[in-house]
Amino acid sequence: MSKPDKVLVALLQNQNQGSAAANLDTIEQGLREAAAQQVQLVLLQELHNGAYFCQHEAVAEFDRAESIPGPSTERLAALARELGLVVVSSLFERRAAGLYHNTAVVFERDGSIAGKYRKMHIPDDPGFLEKFYFTPGDLGFQPIQTSLGRIGVLVCWDQWYPEAARLMALAGADLLLYPTAIGWDRRDGDAEKVRQREAWMLSQRAHAIANGLPVLACNRIGFEASPLADAPGIEFWGSSFVAGPQGEVLAEASTDAATLLVAEVDLQRSEEVRRVWPFLRDRRIDAYADLLKRYRD
Amino acid sequence: MSKPDKVLVALLQNQNQGSAAANLDTIEQGLREAAAQQVQLVLLQELHNGAYFCQHEAVAEFDRAESIPGPSTERLAALARELGLVVVSSLFERRAAGLYHNTAVVFERDGSIAGKYRKMHIPDDPGFLEKFYFTPGDLGFQPIQTSLGRIGVLVCWDQWYPEAARLMALAGADLLLYPTAIGWDRRDGDAEKVRQREAWMLSQRAHAIANGLPVLACNRIGFEASPLADAPGIEFWGSSFVAGPQGEVLAEASTDAATLLVAEVDLQRSEEVRRVWPFLRDRRIDAYADLLKRYRD
Repeated sequence: MSKPDKVLVALLQNQNQGSAAANLDTIEQGLREAAAQQVQLVLLQELHNGAYFCQHEAVAEFDRAESIPGPSTERLAALARELGLVVVSSLFERRAAGLYHNTAVVFERDGSIAGKYRKMHIPDDPGFLEKFYFTPGDLGFQPIQTSLGRIGVLVCWDQWYPEAARLMALAGADLLLYPTAIGWDRRDGDAEKVRQREAWMLSQRAHAIANGLPVLACNRIGFEASPLADAPGIEFWGSSFVAGPQGEVLAEASTDAATLLVAEVDLQRSEEVRRVWPFLRDRRIDAYADLLKRYRD
Repeated sequence: MSKPDKVLVALLQNQNQGSAAANLDTIEQGLREAAAQQVQLVLLQELHNGAYFCQHEAVAEFDRAESIPGPSTERLAALARELGLVVVSSLFERRAAGLYHNTAVVFERDGSIAGKYRKMHIPDDPGFLEKFYFTPGDLGFQPIQTSLGRIGVLVCWDQWYPEAARLMALAGADLLLYPTAIGWDRRDGDAEKVRQREAWMLSQRAHAIANGLPVLACNRIGFEASPLADAPGIEFWGSSFVAGPQGEVLAEASTDAATLLVAEVDLQRSEEVRRVWPFLRDRRIDAYADLLKRYRD
């Protein structure tokens, strides 16, 4: 399938609005604004329908999950079709009783579901207790074909893994997209906060460089208290950004403002950059076997 | 083998002094200065004995190569022993007639050769015609045990490959070290120059993050004209740096000044950082098989 030379993209950075209905209303508003600005692709943040509920482990939270297709995908599909947008959403998927995933859904601009990606790397750390909720993805690292190119969607924790980005690139991804939900523990000092936010950006910009691909990362903002009495809650650090294939930042949102971040991505630049930095040419696949090991001992 | 909690390291950034003897004199001076500052480990830049000769392809340049052990390793070993330093050097290795490598040699502080690493990823681009000179390494990605910990030495072009850093980390590396020789084409505009230098730093800082390890990169400075009439030469961009295991820059040299860049590296920080960011825990080794493919088509 052909792809355009340039794509106008938008990232919708926002805080939790309380309910799925309220969040989808805000998203609808953002999509309409994006379409008014001639945007072609919109990336939403991770689990955009509600609070980041993984701060505690509670079976009642599974009520948030829904099937795919389901009510949220129907609403988003209708908007994609009406507005002629490719939309990348992030949902809590109920696949079967007791089987749930953290799933990104890509809608084609005709409203069809172009494909989905189930988060492969699942974190489990204080405040981010995802292993309780999400079964690790079983769809592998497979870009999704759309009219705007092959979209390599990865989700949050995946962003720390060069392996994930590389596998998407090797499968022909034209863009890497990261819906994410990451923030600070307020008890940490400023220096640690700076290190964490910079490492997060840097890690993803490095995926752009290593693979000669544009990278889009959309994070939420706002403070969300923990349901646990002794936990600090999370101050989501926003900073949604778009980087080009040399890791250069094309657009970046603030740490705390609701933002529709619009940027033009030049897909032809990847062709040029990969000619100048032909990293794919020289991979030592004869010497990489131990990448499939947990540890080399 | 035990390792210290903290290591005082130094990177010797310099320009080509013309001859191997002159370069080794300058290195000797730097090592003495480092020892006077209580430094324990010194990283030298790539192919520190002379000009970056890979700007053209000429059989006479093979005369620069020497065996390992050989005259240069003898001189460096004597200095390592006298000054009690671990030294990481980078030499043009003649292994046999018609068989050459770009080889890093690690000297223990008693002057013994702790180990060597033969550059695995070999570039070949205008100005960097290394495939003519260097057979790709056949020692794999294996850290070298020293009294200061397990040194993961990688060389220049390797720095663009997350696979290389990961394999060193999985084999128990405590530090990642990159002797390098990279610079600008003066014909490029300022924006491109900024993107290139930043991408270079970013890529290596991202290896620190992905693997929870300190990273040291030592680059040369100065302009070296090309022997080819129609080639622009290389303006080496220096910027040697030391990063901690969150990718934070601990020390950075300028783009053009001869520098002995000293920094303290806290090896215990890796233990702490990896507990907070346990990326190694969650690698999807069941889904990484295609990393061993050239491309997934």
